[in-house]
Amino acid sequence: MEDSNHLANPETPHSLEAETYEEEEGSDTESNSLRQPLLKRNRTLSSTPLALVGAKVSHIESLDYEYMSGLIFFTGINFFLTLIAAVLCVCFAPTAAGPGIPEIKAYLNGVDTPNMFGATTLLVKIVGSIGAVSAGLDLGKEGPLVHIGSCIASLLAQGGPDNYRIKWRWLRYFNNDRDRRDIITCGSSSGVCAAFRAPVGGVLFALEEVATWWRSALLWRTFFSTAVVVVVLRAFIEICNSGKCGLFGTGGLIMFDVSDVKVSYQAMDVIPIIIIGIIGGLLGSLYNHVLHKVLRVYNLINHKGKMHKLLLALGVSLFTSVCQYCLPFLAQCRACDPSFPETCPTNDRSGNFKQFNCPDGYYNDLATLLLTTNDDAVRNIFSTNTTNEFHVTSILIFFALYCILGLITFGIAVPSGLFLPIILMGSGYGRLLSMAMGSYTNLDEGLFAVLGAASLMAGSMRMTVSLCVIFLELTNNLLLLPITMIVLLIAKTVGDCFNPSIYEIILELKGLPFLDANPEPWMRNLTVGELADVKPPVVTLCGVEKVSRIMDVLRNTTHNAFPIVDQGVLVPGTVATGATELHGLILRAHLVQALKKKWFLPEKRRTEEWEVREKFNWVELAERELKIEQVAVTRDEMEMYVDLHPLTNTTPFTVVESMSVAKALVLFRQVGLRHLLIVPKYQGAGVAPVVGILTRQDLRAYNILSAFPHLERPKLS
Amino acid sequence: MEDSNHLANPETPHSLEAETYEEEEGSDTESNSLRQPLLKRNRTLSSTPLALVGAKVSHIESLDYEYMSGLIFFTGINFFLTLIAAVLCVCFAPTAAGPGIPEIKAYLNGVDTPNMFGATTLLVKIVGSIGAVSAGLDLGKEGPLVHIGSCIASLLAQGGPDNYRIKWRWLRYFNNDRDRRDIITCGSSSGVCAAFRAPVGGVLFALEEVATWWRSALLWRTFFSTAVVVVVLRAFIEICNSGKCGLFGTGGLIMFDVSDVKVSYQAMDVIPIIIIGIIGGLLGSLYNHVLHKVLRVYNLINHKGKMHKLLLALGVSLFTSVCQYCLPFLAQCRACDPSFPETCPTNDRSGNFKQFNCPDGYYNDLATLLLTTNDDAVRNIFSTNTTNEFHVTSILIFFALYCILGLITFGIAVPSGLFLPIILMGSGYGRLLSMAMGSYTNLDEGLFAVLGAASLMAGSMRMTVSLCVIFLELTNNLLLLPITMIVLLIAKTVGDCFNPSIYEIILELKGLPFLDANPEPWMRNLTVGELADVKPPVVTLCGVEKVSRIMDVLRNTTHNAFPIVDQGVLVPGTVATGATELHGLILRAHLVQALKKKWFLPEKRRTEEWEVREKFNWVELAERELKIEQVAVTRDEMEMYVDLHPLTNTTPFTVVESMSVAKALVLFRQVGLRHLLIVPKYQGAGVAPVVGILTRQDLRAYNILSAFPHLERPKLS
Repeated sequence: MEDSNHLANPETPHSLEAETYEEEEGSDTESNSLRQPLLKRNRTLSSTPLALVGAKVSHIESLDYEYMSGLIFFTGINFFLTLIAAVLCVCFAPTAAGPGIPEIKAYLNGVDTPNMFGATTLLVKIVGSIGAVSAGLDLGKEGPLVHIGSCIASLLAQGGPDNYRIKWRWLRYFNNDRDRRDIITCGSSSGVCAAFRAPVGGVLFALEEVATWWRSALLWRTFFSTAVVVVVLRAFIEICNSGKCGLFGTGGLIMFDVSDVKVSYQAMDVIPIIIIGIIGGLLGSLYNHVLHKVLRVYNLINHKGKMHKLLLALGVSLFTSVCQYCLPFLAQCRACDPSFPETCPTNDRSGNFKQFNCPDGYYNDLATLLLTTNDDAVRNIFSTNTTNEFHVTSILIFFALYCILGLITFGIAVPSGLFLPIILMGSGYGRLLSMAMGSYTNLDEGLFAVLGAASLMAGSMRMTVSLCVIFLELTNNLLLLPITMIVLLIAKTVGDCFNPSIYEIILELKGLPFLDANPEPWMRNLTVGELADVKPPVVTLCGVEKVSRIMDVLRNTTHNAFPIVDQGVLVPGTVATGATELHGLILRAHLVQALKKKWFLPEKRRTEEWEVREKFNWVELAERELKIEQVAVTRDEMEMYVDLHPLTNTTPFTVVESMSVAKALVLFRQVGLRHLLIVPKYQGAGVAPVVGILTRQDLRAYNILSAFPHLERPKLS
Repeated sequence: MEDSNHLANPETPHSLEAETYEEEEGSDTESNSLRQPLLKRNRTLSSTPLALVGAKVSHIESLDYEYMSGLIFFTGINFFLTLIAAVLCVCFAPTAAGPGIPEIKAYLNGVDTPNMFGATTLLVKIVGSIGAVSAGLDLGKEGPLVHIGSCIASLLAQGGPDNYRIKWRWLRYFNNDRDRRDIITCGSSSGVCAAFRAPVGGVLFALEEVATWWRSALLWRTFFSTAVVVVVLRAFIEICNSGKCGLFGTGGLIMFDVSDVKVSYQAMDVIPIIIIGIIGGLLGSLYNHVLHKVLRVYNLINHKGKMHKLLLALGVSLFTSVCQYCLPFLAQCRACDPSFPETCPTNDRSGNFKQFNCPDGYYNDLATLLLTTNDDAVRNIFSTNTTNEFHVTSILIFFALYCILGLITFGIAVPSGLFLPIILMGSGYGRLLSMAMGSYTNLDEGLFAVLGAASLMAGSMRMTVSLCVIFLELTNNLLLLPITMIVLLIAKTVGDCFNPSIYEIILELKGLPFLDANPEPWMRNLTVGELADVKPPVVTLCGVEKVSRIMDVLRNTTHNAFPIVDQGVLVPGTVATGATELHGLILRAHLVQALKKKWFLPEKRRTEEWEVREKFNWVELAERELKIEQVAVTRDEMEMYVDLHPLTNTTPFTVVESMSVAKALVLFRQVGLRHLLIVPKYQGAGVAPVVGILTRQDLRAYNILSAFPHLERPKLS
């Protein structure tokens, strides 16, 4: 090991100092005892007299014991913290596990995951996230903070938890899907803002990754919410400046500040930058690929029961803790340079140079990275002008460890974010690449770490603008912007060649019917009429319908909406009689409400709109949870009628049957629909006024292909 | 004047120095002669002996002459430069006048302004913009650069200017509206990026202000183009570092760098920040209001002919030059402080402290702001730690002058941007506010100038995120971000209470039928069927139509699309015969093409699709300029038939007649349509399969209200 040190930087005075220490090491066994057996094996020069060693054996044993108890203490605490997080997630809110971002993304696309934004989920997410992060697991608080932000937003919009809702009048403004989506988007951007202290990055993250529909009003709304977050953060940082709040006050508003470094790059530096981007993209897509496999295996394990989930989480915690504690013993102690700006060595909670098992005046570089919070690890590895601070072996161990941890930690049943693990992995990769390039480039190693992290993020998550701004706001170095942009774009492009982004992979794994923005090319060759033909025929109701028929339809189908068709009407302005009229679309929930409220007529007649206004209020009509099983109808009532006209949505979106599935999908997603009616292109007596009805599930590529398998064959773009 | 100086800052040594100079001034007539008559009037202490004055009269006269010739030279050059810009704009490309951003915004919304993106426009815009900016007019190069970027993008996409197009195969990828829109969006974001050296700001500007439709693919495409711009810029700056390129090399990648200032603000500083925002919002909306009036007057003048346009531009140029040259004589000379980091005084092209009419060791603070490039003026007024550099009178004159210039310059017939005038005005306002607040706040005056500029921009243009990022990238100070966000949001909110954004005002003035994202509330109470009833009945064609009928329809209507309806068809799967079928929609351009190509059949029959493929190619079908007047048809041919089926778009978007106008408008804009077919809600014999057809003009609020004036009355939201 020393030899490699000699080869790597043979002339620097720094490494010579370190070497000097290695030679004196024999007499320093007091503080270095545990490393001795590891280091001695490949040692060529040992100046320790045998007698001295014998005299100190008992001392060494007591140190062995101290390290052992340290390991047990460290692992035990972490185990306990993971246990809390995992038990909470497994027993009380399974939806709180993971980052939550894919589910939010799906919600904003129109797919509601049950129990995603409840009060229990929020509490479990907060406590669980604190537990999981402080257990030293390789996961971030970023994803959970996004979820926490969205939960708070959702609870605010509905006036509190489900059972204790405040029914303020103004809350009804959020009682529609669009405004609920808007406020949840604001919540998620606030979460990103709080996680990275990046207000603009938060807005852009919500725009680029989370939201499906975007309006300019939403832009300044999210911007407003992140502004509030940043003001509150700023106030807390001011209050905590005195150091009363532990580690919180130390970071300042800029988390990983590298603004002090003078970025100077020439045209030649473009080559290493391109290399960072390409390898980052490759590594990112490889990470996505392997994580996909791991998550499949984890899914199998997690489905076996709560105990399996718990054991998996605890196993990962044990592995992480043992690795973090034991691996630093593999590293060499390095001498503190008096030119270091920080105190060295340090045994304190924070600080760049951890002493760990080294004597005074020396520090353990791997302990600096592993035995600290994840945030501090990033800060250390991003730090600039620290070419000699870390040994290549330490960075190699760090990178390898976090590759493994990043793969095995994500799927366990605790709240976990993906940002920080990828940043850790990427920064390790960046430093390694910088070391490998050596004198070929003049760029700082710390900058390489930043760019490596950016490239791996882009390679895995496939974001560009938002990542760029988040990195800008994290590092506060505007001069880095052009090279960050290039790295991000290259890594994203390379990654896109191999697989979709990590969030899309997770969405698919969770089976959420996410509607993509771009229709598949083969969808142009299929009409919605053909699609409707392979579905069960559409179930329509009359405008004034018999109760028994409604009960029958509600019990025997699972449809959520039914077209209302009136027979034998007179077409205004023509002589045509006996025509049929497509009156609109009625929701299952409203049918159930009408039955529950006994909105029955003894004879077949139409009612006035004010009658329905008297009977129903907006709260009841907005309710969605009512089941048909909860409604009891007597035999007499079965023979009565319900006038469905006042409860009908008379302006449903429609497409003609000759419309291609691709264009229907564009309409469906752009306008944000749940049901799309298909009307015939023919006009004449005996033609049904509705050909079919399309839902999200009907428009999913997978479902269409199972009905039309021949479509997939020609893979043309 | 000296008295006010005494009162303003009575204790600072700086002002005492200036005062000392004032008392010695009498002996310094050599370099200060012109100011003497102005200053003497309200002078109480004059130490100049009468004899000395008499002896120097001849010298004074020669100086008078020098200043006079300076004025003539300055005004003459500016006049000439304005003349070039105005003549080019008036005679060759009227569309090159103004910023071009509203037209680009309209284009991306679906409204094509003729000659907007041609080669002539591009050339005139480039040369004219250089002329207008170097003439010292109060206008920026930002808007023109956005237009230039879009022109270049458009020319690239179509393979060169109209008459010399390169017909490369891959260019056909841009031969559809969507991709052309995309590339023009990229061009406009590149323009912003080049103007402000703000890559992320450019992307966000395009997103927030310019584009109507936005996809995630567009996000990284614009990001890519701005990345290229910033790399090219970076390379030029590197090449120009030696100073060979004049003023270009001096700025660096960050234009108005204030990163050196330590931003420290407490909770109490929120109050001045809120005040900046509120007043900025008020001023911004006032500016919009007055500019609207001025532009109406200018429109009247400009409509009178080319000569009037030219004279207006030249008059404004004269006024600007005279003010810029003469007003500095009103300012007092201020002593150079040895602590100034820059050379002082300077007579060079750049530099913060202009000597102008002052003796050595003194500078004229108003000349520093007026007799320089606009960019340097902003840099000077943004400069931090310069509390004593500018006198309140100078800033007041500066602000008043630029308020007047900002209003009268924008509408003249030269390429002009709005960003810089508003930044200049806003920075003056910010400094004034800072001076007015005095010791109530600890924030730096330069920061006040930055925030004042931001607030006026937001108050006038109503952008938030993009302005925030542009300011971040202009000033390179991340710690300013939270307060910038607050200022922007407040100013935007205050401004929105009074009038729409400046670009919307210009769009309305230009009469461009821009479709807003949000339908008016009263649109919910009108169905598209009612709207179709007040329009002329829809003109439909048969699938196989007689040539004479087509000629007739094309000559007598101006419609751009016609529904194709087949009569007496058999409905598949039913016994219904004699039904009508809505086959689709055919474009006027395709009808004209069919006539021009003599795609005639002697008998009424249908053709195969391969036949049409042989006859027409994609270039012809993409052509839009063909006129019906260019087609000659013989009398025999008039009796022949055309099969329109292969040329028909069989998948037009449709709405049922009961659909509300609000929802139809959402569909129209979200999907990006030109024509929307209205189908009947009735189904039966004798019902026409198409009720009407909606275009952009039909859905504009103004046009609907002229047909249904009663709708506007209830102004409920």
